[in-house]
Amino acid sequence: MKKISLLGATGSIGVQTLDVIEQHPEQFRLTAISFGKNMEKGLEIIHKFEPEVIAVQKKEDADRLRLKLGNSFRIVFGEEGLIEAAAATEADIVVSAVMGSVGLLPTIHAIKAGKDIAIANKETLVTAGHIVMELAEKHGVRILPVDSEHSAIFQCLNGENPKQIERLILTASGGSFRDYTRSQLADVTVDQALNHPNWSMGAKITIDSATMMNKGLEVIEAHWLFNIPYSKIDVILHKESIIHSMVEYKDGSTLAHLGNPDMRVPIQYALTYPDRLELPSSKRLNLWELSKLHFGKMDQERFRCLKLAYIAGEKGGTMTTAMNAANEEAVQLFLDRKIPFLRIEDIIEKAMEQHEFIQRPTLEEIQAIDRLTRQYVQSLLN
Amino acid sequence: MKKISLLGATGSIGVQTLDVIEQHPEQFRLTAISFGKNMEKGLEIIHKFEPEVIAVQKKEDADRLRLKLGNSFRIVFGEEGLIEAAAATEADIVVSAVMGSVGLLPTIHAIKAGKDIAIANKETLVTAGHIVMELAEKHGVRILPVDSEHSAIFQCLNGENPKQIERLILTASGGSFRDYTRSQLADVTVDQALNHPNWSMGAKITIDSATMMNKGLEVIEAHWLFNIPYSKIDVILHKESIIHSMVEYKDGSTLAHLGNPDMRVPIQYALTYPDRLELPSSKRLNLWELSKLHFGKMDQERFRCLKLAYIAGEKGGTMTTAMNAANEEAVQLFLDRKIPFLRIEDIIEKAMEQHEFIQRPTLEEIQAIDRLTRQYVQSLLN
Repeated sequence: MKKISLLGATGSIGVQTLDVIEQHPEQFRLTAISFGKNMEKGLEIIHKFEPEVIAVQKKEDADRLRLKLGNSFRIVFGEEGLIEAAAATEADIVVSAVMGSVGLLPTIHAIKAGKDIAIANKETLVTAGHIVMELAEKHGVRILPVDSEHSAIFQCLNGENPKQIERLILTASGGSFRDYTRSQLADVTVDQALNHPNWSMGAKITIDSATMMNKGLEVIEAHWLFNIPYSKIDVILHKESIIHSMVEYKDGSTLAHLGNPDMRVPIQYALTYPDRLELPSSKRLNLWELSKLHFGKMDQERFRCLKLAYIAGEKGGTMTTAMNAANEEAVQLFLDRKIPFLRIEDIIEKAMEQHEFIQRPTLEEIQAIDRLTRQYVQSLLN
Repeated sequence: MKKISLLGATGSIGVQTLDVIEQHPEQFRLTAISFGKNMEKGLEIIHKFEPEVIAVQKKEDADRLRLKLGNSFRIVFGEEGLIEAAAATEADIVVSAVMGSVGLLPTIHAIKAGKDIAIANKETLVTAGHIVMELAEKHGVRILPVDSEHSAIFQCLNGENPKQIERLILTASGGSFRDYTRSQLADVTVDQALNHPNWSMGAKITIDSATMMNKGLEVIEAHWLFNIPYSKIDVILHKESIIHSMVEYKDGSTLAHLGNPDMRVPIQYALTYPDRLELPSSKRLNLWELSKLHFGKMDQERFRCLKLAYIAGEKGGTMTTAMNAANEEAVQLFLDRKIPFLRIEDIIEKAMEQHEFIQRPTLEEIQAIDRLTRQYVQSLLN
């Protein structure tokens, strides 16, 4: 019986994690959850799974929950509450499926408490990869990927010698605008951007897919998760999202992970690693039903956010923090219909150029750069 | 330094094995070879690699070699000579790349002598899988696949729990006639059949590819190598031969091995397992250069030899021996332009029906059935 703390329970990954837990009641128990504002969904989860610890964003919501639920649950709130749900429970593993850089601190506390981390939150490794991976090694905990791409790579590394890796090859569906030229991109709307062809995900990540920043964040994550230099991480366009990513070895062998797009597969693998459990509701892959798989070369001029991510990754230090914070702010501005689509990459580039770079930042410096970059992005709009 | 005995040195797999050995002089040493009749090529190999033991088919050839080479080499001949090259040398591993059922006895002797086997000879497992695998387990030796399909599956099993396999999926290029209807197949010529689209191989295996018996033999081999029931072994058409085969696990994950068609990759892997060495002359796979991969459902009515192989495999015992012997004879008759292409499958079917089936045959019984089946096939022509 594996005990799970699920941060971000009402989001897209959260809900699919709960589906996996529900399909294997004899294997998993939910001991803690966090969620933001979706009280209705939150209550439904609480009644179904009865986690001991419940963390919400705001004090008012915690108070409302206490009134409704009585004393059978430990109800906490705010950043401190999130840290408690991550680190101060019986959980063996913490699924970090919160959105944005809020995921960093609870993960650090969970690692210090000796818990394995199933990481769906991209920003944790993007902004503080060196701190997180060092800490994980020190405390002997596993950082298990949940993203389909990183889970694919992780699975293709099973039983292999990491020294014999030639390169990692991440596949990219190309997002909502894969067939658009740059001039066509100038006028795209939020609704168009939110219409991802393959994966059903949250709004932020769907926009990141359309700008290709999502793949950029994944390149940086892959660097940290697998300790591979950026020069050995490639991205290839593959519109069907059937090959989830690949590892090429130095003998010319390439191992790939394939499957129908279903996030529950990598989520479950992170929870069961190194074992595999059945997932009966997942549709089996029959390649002959698809008939063809397509591949294309990635164009970093066409997808400038990917190029920026490589530049930030190579530079390291706080450069990825600035990039990530600027991206989060810019995507929100686009979702709020305050800037056009292509302004996102301009804002990120400016923020990367202007920020005061630190090569080996502490956690506090990372948080300061994150804050300052967000302020800078907002200042651009005034 | 790994010492290698190479049976079938002048054939297609043999020559590519020598290329791998030559690229890694610090890793490998050739201690023994066998070859059939190609004296010119054989002498070239002897001068370049200086193996201690040399086995040829005929006494005359052995005598000629002794005259030419003097006493620096141990020169042997016939079945006994082949067994000596396999089992009575310093080799750590025997590459069995001889053609046909002549590969069985030397492999059995090599296993008893404690040598790992890199198996390229399909007939060994097809005709005597139960004996060979039991013996290998008893003597604690490895049976390492050399076929690209089985090597792919073997690599996709690295670090995995075999109990969690859902199915093996072998890919088939479709051979020389993949787009032909059955009525078109009636009139195909030997030259057409020998023109394989992807792989450069010997004549027998190229014809087997065209009839799809090659895939049938591989299904039976996969059954023995990986101890998987036939109901969990599928074949899919994939004309580019880029995905070499796959393993589907019960969580819905499918792992695949990809690469440009180059037999030296699986040959080398069998020699270096579990390590990987560079293979500089091998062309790297860039999927975007291919743009598309195609997949199709396998039609066992269209490719009746594959169906016969599944039937023989499921039945077990001497049924696969009869099938294999009939196929070898029928393919030779086709190559000799004595029967039309579609007669191959008719002959196999008849031979399977008429032979006196034994469920748990001894090695002697297998050899008897092999001999009797060949006689039966010849009798059909009179």
